[in-house]
Amino acid sequence: MLSDKILNAGSIAVVGASKTVTKRGYQAIRILLEEKYEGRIYPVNPKLESLFGLPCYPKVSAIPDPVDLALITTPAATLPAVLEDCGKKGVAGAVIIAGGFGELGEAGRELERKMVEVARKYHIRLIGPNTSGMINMHKHLNLVGLRDAPAGNIALISQSGNMALTMITEAKVKSRIGFSYYVGVGNEADISFHEYLEFFEKDPNTSAILMYVEGMRNGRKFLQQAYQTTRKKPIVLLKSGRSAIGQRSAGSHTGALAGMSEVARTAFKRAGIVVVENSDELLPCAEALANLPPIKNNNVAILADGGGHATIGSDELSDLKVNLPDLSDKTKEKLKAILPAAASVANPVDVAGGADDNPVVLAQCARILLHDPNIGGVLVVGLFGGYSIRFSESLAFAEEDAAHQFGKLVRETGKPIIMHSLYNFAKPHSLDLLRYYGIPVFDSLELSCKAIGVLAEYGGYLRGYKSKVKFVFNMGAKAKARGQAILHQAREEGRRALLEHEAKELISMHFGSPCRDQLAGSPDEAVEWAEKFEEPVVMKIVSPDILHKSEAGGVRLNLKKPAEIKRAYKEIVANAKAFNPEADIRGVLVAPMAGDGLEIIIGTKLDDQFGPVIMFGIGGIMVEVLKDVVFRVLPISPYSAKNMINEIKSVKLLDGFRGQPPADRKAVKRLLLTVSEIIGSYPEIQELDLNPVIAHEEGLSVVDARIILKP
Amino acid sequence: MLSDKILNAGSIAVVGASKTVTKRGYQAIRILLEEKYEGRIYPVNPKLESLFGLPCYPKVSAIPDPVDLALITTPAATLPAVLEDCGKKGVAGAVIIAGGFGELGEAGRELERKMVEVARKYHIRLIGPNTSGMINMHKHLNLVGLRDAPAGNIALISQSGNMALTMITEAKVKSRIGFSYYVGVGNEADISFHEYLEFFEKDPNTSAILMYVEGMRNGRKFLQQAYQTTRKKPIVLLKSGRSAIGQRSAGSHTGALAGMSEVARTAFKRAGIVVVENSDELLPCAEALANLPPIKNNNVAILADGGGHATIGSDELSDLKVNLPDLSDKTKEKLKAILPAAASVANPVDVAGGADDNPVVLAQCARILLHDPNIGGVLVVGLFGGYSIRFSESLAFAEEDAAHQFGKLVRETGKPIIMHSLYNFAKPHSLDLLRYYGIPVFDSLELSCKAIGVLAEYGGYLRGYKSKVKFVFNMGAKAKARGQAILHQAREEGRRALLEHEAKELISMHFGSPCRDQLAGSPDEAVEWAEKFEEPVVMKIVSPDILHKSEAGGVRLNLKKPAEIKRAYKEIVANAKAFNPEADIRGVLVAPMAGDGLEIIIGTKLDDQFGPVIMFGIGGIMVEVLKDVVFRVLPISPYSAKNMINEIKSVKLLDGFRGQPPADRKAVKRLLLTVSEIIGSYPEIQELDLNPVIAHEEGLSVVDARIILKP
Repeated sequence: MLSDKILNAGSIAVVGASKTVTKRGYQAIRILLEEKYEGRIYPVNPKLESLFGLPCYPKVSAIPDPVDLALITTPAATLPAVLEDCGKKGVAGAVIIAGGFGELGEAGRELERKMVEVARKYHIRLIGPNTSGMINMHKHLNLVGLRDAPAGNIALISQSGNMALTMITEAKVKSRIGFSYYVGVGNEADISFHEYLEFFEKDPNTSAILMYVEGMRNGRKFLQQAYQTTRKKPIVLLKSGRSAIGQRSAGSHTGALAGMSEVARTAFKRAGIVVVENSDELLPCAEALANLPPIKNNNVAILADGGGHATIGSDELSDLKVNLPDLSDKTKEKLKAILPAAASVANPVDVAGGADDNPVVLAQCARILLHDPNIGGVLVVGLFGGYSIRFSESLAFAEEDAAHQFGKLVRETGKPIIMHSLYNFAKPHSLDLLRYYGIPVFDSLELSCKAIGVLAEYGGYLRGYKSKVKFVFNMGAKAKARGQAILHQAREEGRRALLEHEAKELISMHFGSPCRDQLAGSPDEAVEWAEKFEEPVVMKIVSPDILHKSEAGGVRLNLKKPAEIKRAYKEIVANAKAFNPEADIRGVLVAPMAGDGLEIIIGTKLDDQFGPVIMFGIGGIMVEVLKDVVFRVLPISPYSAKNMINEIKSVKLLDGFRGQPPADRKAVKRLLLTVSEIIGSYPEIQELDLNPVIAHEEGLSVVDARIILKP
Repeated sequence: MLSDKILNAGSIAVVGASKTVTKRGYQAIRILLEEKYEGRIYPVNPKLESLFGLPCYPKVSAIPDPVDLALITTPAATLPAVLEDCGKKGVAGAVIIAGGFGELGEAGRELERKMVEVARKYHIRLIGPNTSGMINMHKHLNLVGLRDAPAGNIALISQSGNMALTMITEAKVKSRIGFSYYVGVGNEADISFHEYLEFFEKDPNTSAILMYVEGMRNGRKFLQQAYQTTRKKPIVLLKSGRSAIGQRSAGSHTGALAGMSEVARTAFKRAGIVVVENSDELLPCAEALANLPPIKNNNVAILADGGGHATIGSDELSDLKVNLPDLSDKTKEKLKAILPAAASVANPVDVAGGADDNPVVLAQCARILLHDPNIGGVLVVGLFGGYSIRFSESLAFAEEDAAHQFGKLVRETGKPIIMHSLYNFAKPHSLDLLRYYGIPVFDSLELSCKAIGVLAEYGGYLRGYKSKVKFVFNMGAKAKARGQAILHQAREEGRRALLEHEAKELISMHFGSPCRDQLAGSPDEAVEWAEKFEEPVVMKIVSPDILHKSEAGGVRLNLKKPAEIKRAYKEIVANAKAFNPEADIRGVLVAPMAGDGLEIIIGTKLDDQFGPVIMFGIGGIMVEVLKDVVFRVLPISPYSAKNMINEIKSVKLLDGFRGQPPADRKAVKRLLLTVSEIIGSYPEIQELDLNPVIAHEEGLSVVDARIILKP
């Protein structure tokens, strides 16, 4: 847990304090003074006696009182020495503004390593480098140089100073919300995303966390932390770099099938994070989540005054997979009683001018809707706040009355209301009143829909949370000793790839079924195995030096008679020797033919940011032509395994298509969990590929398996 | 072409003129007077002598001077009589406010029919009914009751009064643009969308057309008109009702595969319309298209000041399929010469603070970029307009200088610039200057990207236009007489479904290949045909009373020997008789087996709004599980046929998958065009289904064909 001395520092040393107005070392102190920072400020500059009436010190270690945090504005090259000095003084943390570290090639990375080494030695925690700084709004501790940021209950974590500026400007101009903290994470040389998250989870001034992320150094730790945090506080996140990351991730075969940004998106969502793709949605979503209760049943009613808005709202909520359920007869009757005949009391409700002479009618409708047990929240769209502008000034009081009623309804029912108003621009008092009750007001219909949509999404996550965490899956604990031996053997022989029968043995053990693939050392042994199977067999060359067995003439299918099998053995070995005279040939694998069924593919790879990732798809056209695959960060729960299967677009093929029998879903799910367990049990595995697996009506056959160890 | 007397009326009669302040007949006249309508106003009300100092008339026919247009505010039931009177006076058009017509069930529809009948008799053209009215901004002719709408060069056509209010409010509040006209089309009882379009295409005050559409009565005419209009003026359109239409369109088998909203979207785009899905995008897109040249080569450069905005902008433009090409070495050198070392001169360009003390640098960069022949437009993102706010007030003049340079650059190069500015809210003068030159400024990064994206989309449409129109496809002109005879025969027999061999003959004739399916009337005849084919044959029952041939035991496959064929004939006929003793059995169809190849499906149906629509997909899993199909409104050109094939997600299957030979794309394209021609040649066809067709490496086989005539 991050010490309070970092983000809640009681005293600040400003290294590089300056009299030059344009310098950061001048601006920082001026803003701390102007914004009335609650702690003590120590300018540090050997050439100055004093600054803004404060005594100036030649170095941090010369400051007589304790120093919590140093803001360091001097160039990159000075950092190791400055931190040495901070360390001697016992400073707890440093905010490092300078760029020119890890982002600028090898020399920068070397400097960054050196700087972090010094910091570790003295237990100094670092924000940045290459950061725009940090703001603690409640302590008036502003180390950014961005004035007049509005205070509120949203913690902002951003990897771009510009995006922080965007959020802060929008909060100020477009709504009445604000921030508890801002942190520019910069290069994450020391403190990384998950530690800020942990801190904000416990911060009493923070109700929601808003994040702009370009890339993460510790994606896995972040996910683990987020999984905890989102149970208590909502997180809204925009991850940019979709297009670039898509290009970068074309690594191994499995990864080339989809951009890793898809992996990140799914992983974030699985951790309960609300992921948005459009930066315009960030603040509205954070505002709704920070101030309103989530929706418990994914059911929303739209309350409109006119057709167009109602239609667009319905389209939009349908796209967001929010239900617009029918209203109960009782609810409809109550609405009818207060609305004109032309009104529509279906969902969306259209008051059809019924509020023109009395906007309180809208609040009455909202009350009826929110007291319907089937309705989880209400989206009001259209003209509220503007009845007084459009029709008669005297309606302003009625609108204010309605606003109070809306606000109290939320408190009373524990269900949210979101307001869309064309008249937001005119800043009527009634809309400010709504904000006083935490009801956000947007002039965009689509953003209003999105805001109520994320309340439903987050509510759904919290509702499903329990079913997601209760799982124990450790079928193969006993298998681990033998598994370690197999991996050890490969290492001993200087191999990074397991032989096919080794890989299959490992999988079978953890899957909890006997491995039917057998290594034969002679033609006679091959016949013996085949006779035991009492089925037609496939035979494949086993050699660490032959990767592509078919190319080397090392595969024979559907063999039945002993003579066939003997001949096949000899031919396979001869072909292999012709293909590569140096090859170390271990024998020939004999296995029963897989039989009919649906071809599936399961693979894993290591992602730079998130560690091991699993992929699943239905083989052939679906994977190769349509890229119809799903990814998850490992490990996965039975719940996730089931979701992975159901998320495949071609999932219906598992039910049997055009007279084919259905595939054994239970076995597929079990195999996914087995792979998850194997990757969790043997951290030395870099990649695993089961391609293809044939899923039968009952059970499955792993036709080919490949496991590669880390270098 | 709509008469000038409707939308440019020189005199207005207000039927239902009133002294009651809340009545439309009062407000309308007050606003005409307040906004200084250039024409003459005649209040009509038998109970009043005068209103606002104007003489009042008992009925329209009592007005002594000519009347161009009547605004009718009286209830629905009065309409036939009021129009009778207008007709006698020779009024050219009427705006009908009242609701209660077609939208309210059968009684309303009857009233609407009656009203239209009177209007037709007297050649009165009707706007509405159920409309919020019409505004001609340049003549100050405001029949809506919505004050202070801003004047400009965008014509607004809306099917929702609320959405019109939204657009007008946004234009006023968020930008400096405005409208030439607003028309509320209402129920389209008489004048429909395409006529307004034709009028605005020719209107010198209109540069772009903005449309909000819920549904269309004459979709086909609209598309034809739009196809003409978009060559001259851009159209931006939002079609709502995605979710509802999706439900409604689950009609015939073909239609059930995808919502018809997909048909509409594709059809609109094919006519050159810019279709948006988010109402927030409507006005920004219209503003860009109305005031800036389209982009000729789909290549855009981003000019940023800071990383975050550049990254998000790149993601967004990539999603919109706009290219961000590399810059030439020459361009890079020129940029380097004026930017600091930390700047990035790749695309996106990041000036990295290089404009902090001189924002003119941004205009210099834009000049360099737009003079690169490979760059078609520039998107400036970030802080422009705010350098004076953030750093020093004195920079305001430099920003204004830069704004003039940006504006002149657009004129000089014929390439557009779009500006994103965080400081739009502060309304700095420099941003107003940009608007003076037609450069839009948005505070949303995503909307800025969308705006430059549609300039690229529209430019691409205009560029490709020629290749789209040059086509003649009339292979089967000679076939038409025989085709008519086949259809006639079916009608004679009281059949709506063609028999399979009739349908296949029709298709073969138009496709230009002999039909190999033959009707055999006896076992011996069947053998004769089979011997002529010299191939294994399929045999199928032919009976107008048996639709599902397999169910009736009426299909036999892969028959070779004469004895087999004879037996099959007898069995098929016996089975058919057992299945339906009343069945009129015409014989048995004999055809060569189709052979190997890829299964495809082609179908047509009639859409309520757009008329005949064609569907294409790859059979089996692709259509049935993945709904991987494309639609087009008919007729289609060779260009569209090619696009249809390429838009299928599983298109790669046509190239041959896992060792399969490729399918004959030319033949598939030809078959699509043949179907288009057939539907165009025989308007009496309601539905056509070719399912399946086997596409071979060379040529194709229509395995089953079904043609249904209109009732």
